[in-house]
Amino acid sequence: MDKLHKGWFTEFSPDDLEKMSNPDAPEDSSSKLLKSDGQEMGGAWPGQAFSLQVKKVLFHEKSKYQDVLVFESTTYGNVLVLDGIVQATERDEFSYQEMLAHLPLFAHQNPKKVLIIGGGDGGILREVLKHDTVEKVTMCEIDEMVIDVAKKFLPGMSCGFSHEKLDLYCGDGFEFLKNHKNEFDVIITDSSDPVGPAESLFGQSYYELLRDALKEDGILSSQGESVWLHLPLIAHLVAFNRKIFPTVNYAQSIVSTYPSGSMGYLICAKSDTRDVTTPARVLSDEQVKNMNLRFYNSEVHKAAFVLPQFVRNALEKKKE
Amino acid sequence: MDKLHKGWFTEFSPDDLEKMSNPDAPEDSSSKLLKSDGQEMGGAWPGQAFSLQVKKVLFHEKSKYQDVLVFESTTYGNVLVLDGIVQATERDEFSYQEMLAHLPLFAHQNPKKVLIIGGGDGGILREVLKHDTVEKVTMCEIDEMVIDVAKKFLPGMSCGFSHEKLDLYCGDGFEFLKNHKNEFDVIITDSSDPVGPAESLFGQSYYELLRDALKEDGILSSQGESVWLHLPLIAHLVAFNRKIFPTVNYAQSIVSTYPSGSMGYLICAKSDTRDVTTPARVLSDEQVKNMNLRFYNSEVHKAAFVLPQFVRNALEKKKE
Repeated sequence: MDKLHKGWFTEFSPDDLEKMSNPDAPEDSSSKLLKSDGQEMGGAWPGQAFSLQVKKVLFHEKSKYQDVLVFESTTYGNVLVLDGIVQATERDEFSYQEMLAHLPLFAHQNPKKVLIIGGGDGGILREVLKHDTVEKVTMCEIDEMVIDVAKKFLPGMSCGFSHEKLDLYCGDGFEFLKNHKNEFDVIITDSSDPVGPAESLFGQSYYELLRDALKEDGILSSQGESVWLHLPLIAHLVAFNRKIFPTVNYAQSIVSTYPSGSMGYLICAKSDTRDVTTPARVLSDEQVKNMNLRFYNSEVHKAAFVLPQFVRNALEKKKE
Repeated sequence: MDKLHKGWFTEFSPDDLEKMSNPDAPEDSSSKLLKSDGQEMGGAWPGQAFSLQVKKVLFHEKSKYQDVLVFESTTYGNVLVLDGIVQATERDEFSYQEMLAHLPLFAHQNPKKVLIIGGGDGGILREVLKHDTVEKVTMCEIDEMVIDVAKKFLPGMSCGFSHEKLDLYCGDGFEFLKNHKNEFDVIITDSSDPVGPAESLFGQSYYELLRDALKEDGILSSQGESVWLHLPLIAHLVAFNRKIFPTVNYAQSIVSTYPSGSMGYLICAKSDTRDVTTPARVLSDEQVKNMNLRFYNSEVHKAAFVLPQFVRNALEKKKE
């Protein structure tokens, strides 16, 4: 099995890929395991792989931080791949972008200042700008090449980069947060997986910085991995955040091209004055249509926080 | 790309696989498209593929109806594959089995007689037998070889085949229904996709037979494909069932190893006296534990019927 083989791109678990390129290494020696706070959280999705048929490779270069690939697929439109992992396809990206952005934004009564960490493809930015309440969006993306390829090859996602409400910083989100206190109504971490450049975005000290950068009634959402694949990591994230935030919730939705087809969202609030699992602003059918929402609606908001029993068990067990 | 290559099994869309074996055929000539009522409903999951790493092939034979493969995977336990398509893995099968079985069973106040069509692996049977109300389960599976391999290689799923409440028929579900009228409280169709032996289980005349075999307060559930991949087929199923049943509902859940990671369930009731989207019998935490439910609970029941906006749009459009 190769990553690009007979016209198909295959997304392997980074740890499996490392083993394939070095089959003689001892079984448990992978440097490509998921990590949080120095703890190893297992392989990303060992023993499984997802493939997309490639029509044409549009871009393939190494940036300062990662391998950046964009290809045109036969059935999912253009596809952005970072370090061998599918980040977004034109066909299903709306599911992830809408849920990660609108869960915290509609849980908030009046979000004015929003910070996006990561999100270089522009999809989250596009969704944030749909909220009339928003006066300023700050975005902190470490890899300028991701923004550049999105502008060129993912126009439907990158449409917000020229918006007057945007303040764009190219740099490390972790470092950025250190200089921003009590400033944002909503913060959204749109990161890749915790192996490579995004590893620091899955540790307790990062979430402490997030809390401090939020206003008192602020809400944050973070990419929260898959319940099928990353329960130990998710339970760890939920457990340490319960020490930092009065309310910590986990939601999930389906995303066709993410590993195992589902994605989770960690939603935390700095105060306990409201229940983020129900929207503070409920949308009519007409508003859903006018905002061009294809996944999110106010019922979906609530249902996303209803977790399968095995996930509930895992998160409650950790609580005890 | 080959189906078994360097220790990995790859599940291609049947139509893509046909094209690969006959690359010179005209673009739109596939005999492997999904079909319902003679209408072609597109490829199964064109342009994408899912792979599992194989530890050991345990069984591989052609039955009278299909190609039957069982292998031990490295990370999903034993895997049952029919005609190249993953039907169940030991690690995630509970999600599909619990939802397909318990949505209609808990929507019913007092299910006594249950019919399962298909379901040869035994997973649905296992879940049905968890209901004390059930007095008799009739099962009609066309392919005896599936039952035999499940008994041998999937003991956690096939544990109900020796149960005294079971009446097992090996034969065609469509033919079986013609001789059974007004007999069952709940009918569950646990079929493979509508290409090959299960094609007849996705047409209007099949659902008319199902209606007639149900008692007046009867409820049925059917495997309902994926919202990411089969919206035209789902919209067709919903539309013709609205002519047959007073209430037609669609639910979905996540299943790690199904194409695009999600699976839908078509739930219809013969009368309109109750809303099947809320359970008629609500479970306590203790009951959930005692029934060894790992996916389903009463909150999950309700949330499963909340559909993403793009699915709602597609099903409502068809309604007009």
